[in-house]
Amino acid sequence: MNTHVADLTEEECLKYCLDCHHICLEMAMRHCLQSGGKHTEPMHFRLMLNCAEMCQTNASFMLSSSDLHVLTCGVCAEICRRCAASCAEIGEMEACVQACIDCAESCDRLVALHALEEAVV
Amino acid sequence: MNTHVADLTEEECLKYCLDCHHICLEMAMRHCLQSGGKHTEPMHFRLMLNCAEMCQTNASFMLSSSDLHVLTCGVCAEICRRCAASCAEIGEMEACVQACIDCAESCDRLVALHALEEAVV
Amino acid sequence: MNTHVADLTEEECLKYCLDCHHICLEMAMRHCLQSGGKHTEPMHFRLMLNCAEMCQTNASFMLSSSDLHVLTCGVCAEICRRCAASCAEIGEMEACVQACIDCAESCDRLVALHALEEAVV
Amino acid sequence: MNTHVADLTEEECLKYCLDCHHICLEMAMRHCLQSGGKHTEPMHFRLMLNCAEMCQTNASFMLSSSDLHVLTCGVCAEICRRCAASCAEIGEMEACVQACIDCAESCDRLVALHALEEAVV
Repeated sequence: MNTHVADLTEEECLKYCLDCHHICLEMAMRHCLQSGGKHTEPMHFRLMLNCAEMCQTNASFMLSSSDLHVLTCGVCAEICRRCAASCAEIGEMEACVQACIDCAESCDRLVALHALEEAVV
Repeated sequence: MNTHVADLTEEECLKYCLDCHHICLEMAMRHCLQSGGKHTEPMHFRLMLNCAEMCQTNASFMLSSSDLHVLTCGVCAEICRRCAASCAEIGEMEACVQACIDCAESCDRLVALHALEEAVV
Repeated sequence: MNTHVADLTEEECLKYCLDCHHICLEMAMRHCLQSGGKHTEPMHFRLMLNCAEMCQTNASFMLSSSDLHVLTCGVCAEICRRCAASCAEIGEMEACVQACIDCAESCDRLVALHALEEAVV
Repeated sequence: MNTHVADLTEEECLKYCLDCHHICLEMAMRHCLQSGGKHTEPMHFRLMLNCAEMCQTNASFMLSSSDLHVLTCGVCAEICRRCAASCAEIGEMEACVQACIDCAESCDRLVALHALEEAVV
């Protein structure tokens, strides 16, 4: 396995997680709270904050050079996908939808890379 | 499925997660840093802080009434088990070992209960 | 200065911070989101989550044996007081009001004790 | 008061806080843990993690459009200054020293701007 590829993939995943945390938290606390209505519907609003927190925890695991991020990446990807779907359904939340999709795909790539590494080893 | 059983199991899991976060963070930042040596060996020390953070995130998901805690509980249990093993190997960290085992088992029970609920429904 | 008094005061403050974090987060994400209306008014809802986060950070500083908690305790007390006032104005949030007042008073006591310690030394 | 200036100052402060959190956490968990010795001396290591956490909380307050960030900015600046001094004394931590100084100065500017706004109003 090319270590360089793994490092680049992880560096990219860290960036997407930090961005997704930033955008979801900001959108929830500004746009959603100010808009009200379906934007503060419990299921949607909780998902926004849960997504922000899971991205932060996942980023924190990567920043700490923990090999456990393979575990957190899988959950992070799933939560991001659900958050993207919820934001897309509500509408007018394109930045959040995109950040969640980018983060989910990046987490998936990192998990796939680690599975490949183990298969090769 | 008996909602009462599910609520009690979740309430108990929340308590174990909050305790495990508290004990792992305190042990790492006081006992481990003051002891040094194998206590600050990177793999062990990162695991202690990662475990504290994952327990906190899992607790946060439960406090927010998010149904996504079924996803985070599985990862939390796995990280707690690894932290318990690492603490047991180092020795003199009984409180931490016990908190991690209690938390892992409680997370496992909650995941099993949700799987049972879905099977019945 | 009696170290025993300082340790007991800090232990008590840690407990109040952990409780206040727990109660504010749970009330915001369950009661406030489900009730809507003035409960999800941006200023109030942000204050609830900010209060939960500051209590958690303050608790984290105490758990890590950091002497910097004297700095965070002052800010934590002020935010808890504002949160208590906002919750009292909205009504039906007695548990949250009480947790915030207890936490603020406990933080104040710890700051006062440290000021006294420095005066004696 | 020029709102544009205030917004730019806050946007900049948010960026410095997020960067400082990222750099302090990464340096502590990778460089410090791997180097050991004075790098894992309790006072220094706790300061690194406390600094990362306070920067994150301060960023979180800004992302949530909370006006309480004026309170957290003051404490954040003080903790960043102490972390910069501790890193400078240990040596070979230039990136961390710079990130802490930039963040402290940015927090100071935001606090000063708010004091000015209140004086003008």
